[in-house]
Amino acid sequence: MSGNSFGLLFRLTTFGESHGKAIGVIVEGTPAKVPLQEKDIQEQLDKRKPGQSNISTPRKETDIVHILSGVFEGYTTGTPIMMILHNHDADPQAYHAIKNKFRPGHADYTYLKKYGIRDWRGSGRASGRETAARVAAGAIARKLLAYRGVSVLAYSKEIAGITCQTFDKNAIERNLLRAPDMQAAQKMQQAIEALKEEQNSAGGIIECTIKGVPVGLGEPVFDKIEALLGHAMLSIGAVKAIEFGSGFAASRMTAKEQNDQMSPQGFLSNNAGGMLGGISTGLDIIFRIAVKAPSSIGIKQKTITIDGKDTTIETKGRHDTCICPRIVPVTEAMTCIVLEDLYQRYEAYQFPQNPALRNSNKSQ
Amino acid sequence: MSGNSFGLLFRLTTFGESHGKAIGVIVEGTPAKVPLQEKDIQEQLDKRKPGQSNISTPRKETDIVHILSGVFEGYTTGTPIMMILHNHDADPQAYHAIKNKFRPGHADYTYLKKYGIRDWRGSGRASGRETAARVAAGAIARKLLAYRGVSVLAYSKEIAGITCQTFDKNAIERNLLRAPDMQAAQKMQQAIEALKEEQNSAGGIIECTIKGVPVGLGEPVFDKIEALLGHAMLSIGAVKAIEFGSGFAASRMTAKEQNDQMSPQGFLSNNAGGMLGGISTGLDIIFRIAVKAPSSIGIKQKTITIDGKDTTIETKGRHDTCICPRIVPVTEAMTCIVLEDLYQRYEAYQFPQNPALRNSNKSQ
Amino acid sequence: MSGNSFGLLFRLTTFGESHGKAIGVIVEGTPAKVPLQEKDIQEQLDKRKPGQSNISTPRKETDIVHILSGVFEGYTTGTPIMMILHNHDADPQAYHAIKNKFRPGHADYTYLKKYGIRDWRGSGRASGRETAARVAAGAIARKLLAYRGVSVLAYSKEIAGITCQTFDKNAIERNLLRAPDMQAAQKMQQAIEALKEEQNSAGGIIECTIKGVPVGLGEPVFDKIEALLGHAMLSIGAVKAIEFGSGFAASRMTAKEQNDQMSPQGFLSNNAGGMLGGISTGLDIIFRIAVKAPSSIGIKQKTITIDGKDTTIETKGRHDTCICPRIVPVTEAMTCIVLEDLYQRYEAYQFPQNPALRNSNKSQ
Amino acid sequence: MSGNSFGLLFRLTTFGESHGKAIGVIVEGTPAKVPLQEKDIQEQLDKRKPGQSNISTPRKETDIVHILSGVFEGYTTGTPIMMILHNHDADPQAYHAIKNKFRPGHADYTYLKKYGIRDWRGSGRASGRETAARVAAGAIARKLLAYRGVSVLAYSKEIAGITCQTFDKNAIERNLLRAPDMQAAQKMQQAIEALKEEQNSAGGIIECTIKGVPVGLGEPVFDKIEALLGHAMLSIGAVKAIEFGSGFAASRMTAKEQNDQMSPQGFLSNNAGGMLGGISTGLDIIFRIAVKAPSSIGIKQKTITIDGKDTTIETKGRHDTCICPRIVPVTEAMTCIVLEDLYQRYEAYQFPQNPALRNSNKSQ
Repeated sequence: MSGNSFGLLFRLTTFGESHGKAIGVIVEGTPAKVPLQEKDIQEQLDKRKPGQSNISTPRKETDIVHILSGVFEGYTTGTPIMMILHNHDADPQAYHAIKNKFRPGHADYTYLKKYGIRDWRGSGRASGRETAARVAAGAIARKLLAYRGVSVLAYSKEIAGITCQTFDKNAIERNLLRAPDMQAAQKMQQAIEALKEEQNSAGGIIECTIKGVPVGLGEPVFDKIEALLGHAMLSIGAVKAIEFGSGFAASRMTAKEQNDQMSPQGFLSNNAGGMLGGISTGLDIIFRIAVKAPSSIGIKQKTITIDGKDTTIETKGRHDTCICPRIVPVTEAMTCIVLEDLYQRYEAYQFPQNPALRNSNKSQ
Repeated sequence: MSGNSFGLLFRLTTFGESHGKAIGVIVEGTPAKVPLQEKDIQEQLDKRKPGQSNISTPRKETDIVHILSGVFEGYTTGTPIMMILHNHDADPQAYHAIKNKFRPGHADYTYLKKYGIRDWRGSGRASGRETAARVAAGAIARKLLAYRGVSVLAYSKEIAGITCQTFDKNAIERNLLRAPDMQAAQKMQQAIEALKEEQNSAGGIIECTIKGVPVGLGEPVFDKIEALLGHAMLSIGAVKAIEFGSGFAASRMTAKEQNDQMSPQGFLSNNAGGMLGGISTGLDIIFRIAVKAPSSIGIKQKTITIDGKDTTIETKGRHDTCICPRIVPVTEAMTCIVLEDLYQRYEAYQFPQNPALRNSNKSQ
Repeated sequence: MSGNSFGLLFRLTTFGESHGKAIGVIVEGTPAKVPLQEKDIQEQLDKRKPGQSNISTPRKETDIVHILSGVFEGYTTGTPIMMILHNHDADPQAYHAIKNKFRPGHADYTYLKKYGIRDWRGSGRASGRETAARVAAGAIARKLLAYRGVSVLAYSKEIAGITCQTFDKNAIERNLLRAPDMQAAQKMQQAIEALKEEQNSAGGIIECTIKGVPVGLGEPVFDKIEALLGHAMLSIGAVKAIEFGSGFAASRMTAKEQNDQMSPQGFLSNNAGGMLGGISTGLDIIFRIAVKAPSSIGIKQKTITIDGKDTTIETKGRHDTCICPRIVPVTEAMTCIVLEDLYQRYEAYQFPQNPALRNSNKSQ
Repeated sequence: MSGNSFGLLFRLTTFGESHGKAIGVIVEGTPAKVPLQEKDIQEQLDKRKPGQSNISTPRKETDIVHILSGVFEGYTTGTPIMMILHNHDADPQAYHAIKNKFRPGHADYTYLKKYGIRDWRGSGRASGRETAARVAAGAIARKLLAYRGVSVLAYSKEIAGITCQTFDKNAIERNLLRAPDMQAAQKMQQAIEALKEEQNSAGGIIECTIKGVPVGLGEPVFDKIEALLGHAMLSIGAVKAIEFGSGFAASRMTAKEQNDQMSPQGFLSNNAGGMLGGISTGLDIIFRIAVKAPSSIGIKQKTITIDGKDTTIETKGRHDTCICPRIVPVTEAMTCIVLEDLYQRYEAYQFPQNPALRNSNKSQ
């Protein structure tokens, strides 16, 4: 298996299965002398943690992060930072009943066919638990971006078909769905509880806004900002789509409607979503991702056994009714990782020894 | 600038500006002894070529490909294949008038701010012309995939808000829009001609279907099929969004609706779009991308000069009214490149010396 | 810091400092369904372990390896294998006295100047302890190569200027220096004890022989076998030189002397050391590396403090008098990693769907 | 075939066979706004050009470089720079006689076995001609390093067993062997002419000295300076060995002899050759490589046909008697490429937004 690393300069490599001994990540590319503590990481991990409400799985993932390298006396040393989360609450018993069946919507079938072997305790490497390692790495990137003046904010824009009508940043952490509209959040909550009642589940749309990126980040051609963010987001298990700026709506707009005109004071609109030619414009970068409903439901579904026999399955156990509020911190984490990597690439191509060249090259 | 390469094993590295001397590509990872001629490449390039109708730019890009290495006496040798297209029709004169203005919707502003210098003849490296190099590389991947039994087909699903209602594969190359519905194509054509009349332009949605991929392709976690395809598609200049299977609609479906149940005869639906956990299921892989309207229009728009002064711009010259039919071959090319790369990664992790292990690992 | 990963397909990423909490490695690219247990790894690690004799540091590195992911019920699953070694015996007290001095021959000065911060407990990331992670990863590669019929054997060819005159494979593990000549080993031992007495230390030359590689491994141009092995070996802390086949002596040979002529029975000599044009010839691959004497010695040496003041240093504590026998397993490990990676690249470029092409491509 | 690229940030990708249509290179990672002309490149290529004397092949490689992208009005634009050299003098006729025989010391046998097909006109991709592309790329790196105050100088230290006894920088370009000792050069020349007479050939040792690198370049663990330089040098066709600082001699020195002690004025010696722990110390970086004698000789040698039959071969035609003077510019080129790449990595990990952090991190 390749595909466990992401990033060129700010780079993470993850490991671990949902019911193995631990999951974790090695982060390369953190500059030296940055103050860093486990609580910086834990704070972000806690946002992803399940068991916060009746819409999330009651599994008590302790999710306590330990930094095992790369930090000395409270400061980064420039060496790789290894972070680990031990799997204390792993209860494979719950999976014995479905050990020999393929759960619809899960990767059980594809993993077994690809590898000829499958860790049937939970979803193994394909589990959403893998994203905790991403959130840990993202917490470091977030800290570095704060020095650069960049902030990243994601939230549930729509859940179970209910769309936010207003935007109140302070509302986001005041409701269990991380919606920026308290009224919408209430309706979402009701919709989810109804689905939970019938042992079904719901999807939604997460929006992410990045503020403070100067003009000039992003590498043309294959590593455009949207290409790297798209790669990052579509590598999250439940994400089925992504759009930037006006997105799918852009396909129905004429150029006259879509083009962002300019004045000496700046752009007159931001339909592009903050990038042109794959490079940041200096405006907010905005994208939205579609999150599918969690596949594990109690409703009886048709499936087959690993021997190809007809059977049915009702997935009992501890499962989320809507994963959106937990995907929010993962979205932010992966976004921070992409941006920090692009910042470091940007820095690489400057000439420190030649201030004349350097200054004229600098953005704004 | 990094970001000129794509792929891990089947890998392309491109170069060239729209009005420079040439554009081209080095393709690594083609197995030896594969029959290959320039006409295999030219055939695909001709699909991308402008000047085929009154909806495309009349610029006569000759786009004649030359293979300069990696092929000997009609067969690949296993060494890198370099392909070049000289820019014969490059007419920078047309750009003198707008040399000191930022064209709305283009990368003029971001490139100048990022690099401090800009090749103002056309869009330079940010030009759509860069995609010809991708199509050339994709033509090789397409040929390799044919040996593997895989076929890739893209087409215009919707243009200027007009959606295809039927699907006739044979229709695609029988209308200028590459739509699989002749009636819709006719309406699209009318809509585009009206927009052309008012010097405006149109966007659309391209759908791509991949047939013949066995279960098991794709690398979990960061290199899921959808992550790599997303990266590939969102690196195409005019693409603003991508969705797989039920896509954005999935965000409004419950798990009961979205999950693809199974029977001994196979999956009962394909809402997932052909992948689970980032690995192919053996069903068709299906995705759609949103293409924005070409930014260069004759309508007067507000913009600024490179000195930040207020001005307006009316982009005359040779420009496409709708780029969708020309993005179709680029979509196919990048899809072929992603798939061939994943096939090669799959092969890498098998044991040829141990047939017992190998056979049990193989996908069906 | 970049540079913590090695390999394209069979790839390791390491972390950890000598006196931090742990060191370890994530290994990507192990095929699924390979039997693997911690004792397979421990066996190789035990060869690298110090405290085996009076020539090695008495520090009791417990070096107990734990596999935390990628193995399920005794078999690999195809997912990344994480292995960790906790640092139980880390005694930073020993380093307090020299905390503010640069030890000659060590990386203290360069790390502090590069990063502006230094973990002064031991050598931090620059410690030889880092190589334990490589040995753990190499143990997996070694196992895979055994399936392929490849074996790798390294040994001390020369120590403290005393060169082996005979080669007895069985002698290697029967003397503390891992020399294939028992008589030479005895003299080496005496030389080392004399140096230990005067608190000095010794270097040597390690030779490595690879058997069983078929013709055809290695990637031309930048990833020739010798380029990758050179990269691997010169990344080991104490290694100052490497030569292949006739090596430096080749610079004094004429082509008539150096060229390996051929007969229908095969090559008539192996001055090339097993590769031509960077690709294996099918003969044994042979190389030698120069290992410098361990830098930490009790003899008084001139140095400076971190403030640039004149001082002297006598490095007390637990240090190896000759590191060669402990570099032997590291040499084997890195060699196995390079070969397994090249095997996987070789496999990637074959056509399984086209047996005709495949067979004619296959190496003998 | 993978392995056609080198470098992480300053990165080259090469293509081309000796008797194909062209060879060339795409260089990524050149900052924008650097003045660059074809003559900057040609100057370095001319040093590698054959036909300069009676020790080199009389083949008139015109080796005229053309820059096809990445430069606009005399300045780099930040986009990839493509450079091409057309093969005008390719005369495959000369190779017809040996088309079906494996030339001893060449890669004919290994390429045919690996790929099942071989471009028999010259050495194809394995030809020394491939290094012209490296020299072209290196010329750009050399120019960037000049801005940084770094200079790289290689020369023939020993040829045909004759070693330089003195060092006169000005002598290097005043004799055909690029030796820094005119008296030794004269003897070398005589030795080579004698070998040429008997249709044999000679090897030698090239030394390279890098001046002006500050303390702090190099990435620990796998990407140490010596690991990357070793990779680079051992990827050059005729190079069989490399050593840094005291090199192989270090294996016979005690730590007391080898360690470079320090005073407030700096290091008291430079046995390490300019690096500790893989990071530059600020002293000169020094290494030596062993170059084997060119394999193509007129003396009759035993070999086999491609069908495995006994035969002999006498390689007529245009061949170098000693390749060292032509390897000198290749050595310098690859060294420049490694250093520029490491400089860019160094820059990437600084914080421009936080001058306090940045300054304290900076090397002297």
